[in-house]
Amino acid sequence: MTGSNAPIGVFDSGLGGLTVVRELIRQLPNESIVYFGDTARVPYGPKGEETIIRYSQDIATFLRKQGVKAIVVACNTATAHALPTLRAEQDVPVIGVIEPGARAAVAASRDGRIGVIGTRGTIRSRAYDKAITALEPGATVTAAACPLFVPLVEEGWLDSEPTRIVARGYLEPFTHGKIDTLVLGCTHYPLLKTVIGETIGRDVRLIDSAQETAAETGRVLREQGLQATGSDARYRFVASDDPEQFLAVGQRFLGAPLERVELVTLGV
Amino acid sequence: MTGSNAPIGVFDSGLGGLTVVRELIRQLPNESIVYFGDTARVPYGPKGEETIIRYSQDIATFLRKQGVKAIVVACNTATAHALPTLRAEQDVPVIGVIEPGARAAVAASRDGRIGVIGTRGTIRSRAYDKAITALEPGATVTAAACPLFVPLVEEGWLDSEPTRIVARGYLEPFTHGKIDTLVLGCTHYPLLKTVIGETIGRDVRLIDSAQETAAETGRVLREQGLQATGSDARYRFVASDDPEQFLAVGQRFLGAPLERVELVTLGV
Repeated sequence: MTGSNAPIGVFDSGLGGLTVVRELIRQLPNESIVYFGDTARVPYGPKGEETIIRYSQDIATFLRKQGVKAIVVACNTATAHALPTLRAEQDVPVIGVIEPGARAAVAASRDGRIGVIGTRGTIRSRAYDKAITALEPGATVTAAACPLFVPLVEEGWLDSEPTRIVARGYLEPFTHGKIDTLVLGCTHYPLLKTVIGETIGRDVRLIDSAQETAAETGRVLREQGLQATGSDARYRFVASDDPEQFLAVGQRFLGAPLERVELVTLGV
Repeated sequence: MTGSNAPIGVFDSGLGGLTVVRELIRQLPNESIVYFGDTARVPYGPKGEETIIRYSQDIATFLRKQGVKAIVVACNTATAHALPTLRAEQDVPVIGVIEPGARAAVAASRDGRIGVIGTRGTIRSRAYDKAITALEPGATVTAAACPLFVPLVEEGWLDSEPTRIVARGYLEPFTHGKIDTLVLGCTHYPLLKTVIGETIGRDVRLIDSAQETAAETGRVLREQGLQATGSDARYRFVASDDPEQFLAVGQRFLGAPLERVELVTLGV
């Protein structure tokens, strides 16, 4: 059996990508991980495409210097804009969050009525629409930006009254049987699964892109003979600003205690 | 009468500073303005002091190249961290948002029980506490960060139920007669004046730092003989990223239509 005990590199504009790390640890417990959260330049959502590509290149370069064997772009906005560039430039597998979510949505949907929610940047990019209709040309995709969900999650207003009211407003376009499957197209949204599920109703299947991306990462590593051979997984967490805030909020995303966060400044 | 028809330079990390521009236009209708919103690097709140000083220097240099006769730092975080540096380096008057707000609060308060709300960065800097107690050593300052107010304003959830619930939570420390004056220590907050006023009660005086900063700018220009002599005021709006979003959201802050936003990339 071939393999590699090099770590997987995972990055996000901030902390949301930790929901992907949580799933990677659950599904691939032998894999080591280096996580980079670009907290100095968060959020990516409202930024232009060229800026997001440049930031993603900076981070991929940093991760390669840490010796990673694969890169997971655990950020929908960075995936939407920078994935083709990173795949062209890097000689390790680069996995995004959009294709896995789109594939799972197409598999789960009974008749192709699929909803997508995400940041303004992700929705504007129409990356999910394209990925879904490439797989299932007959699918009908309804998409809506939910820009307040990220700050609500980051401030810890998860199962709260303001979040429920905001969710009712945002999810209105998806009610009345409009969709049978909803893609949570932002790595922050798994923390709102309860509120979103209650608002949208039980008959709509929720696709958690963190889960699907971790599963896809496992498939890619197996296909390329890159799985870890040992069982001494190690985790490193790096942020570009304010490790204190990362420590305080990060464990909510990770679902486990965080012990140490390193500070690294990139391209500023 | 001496004077100058050069524009006033105004900057903020993003769009909030447009509430100061709105007041400048109202109070000083003959003055031309160049506004720079650093939308590529927003928000400054969570960033470190050195980073904020460097960004502020970049912007001041840009504004001076546009020939401005004074610089208004229409951002509480940049004022808290970069004002002394900018004043030492620039040979035009530099006006911040904190001193005017602190002075107005001390003048308005009956017995020095003053509250301050702002972003996490502004509150952590204790800049208002220091400015208020320097003017009125006997004052008692109560401060609270309201991190969700900025995204709520930027998304246009102004007089809405979720905003009212969030406001009740944030403003709880100020109720029950704890304060008689509340400083809105963030340039976004004037848009929430109605909700904040209803939540905190009519007996608490609200200090709008945008209004106070515009008044202070008028005083400084008069003192230094720099008022505009003509009546053909011109306005330029410059952003470091995504002029589309600036156009869409900016008019809410400005309270007037915005026609054109230029894109300028700084020090990246």
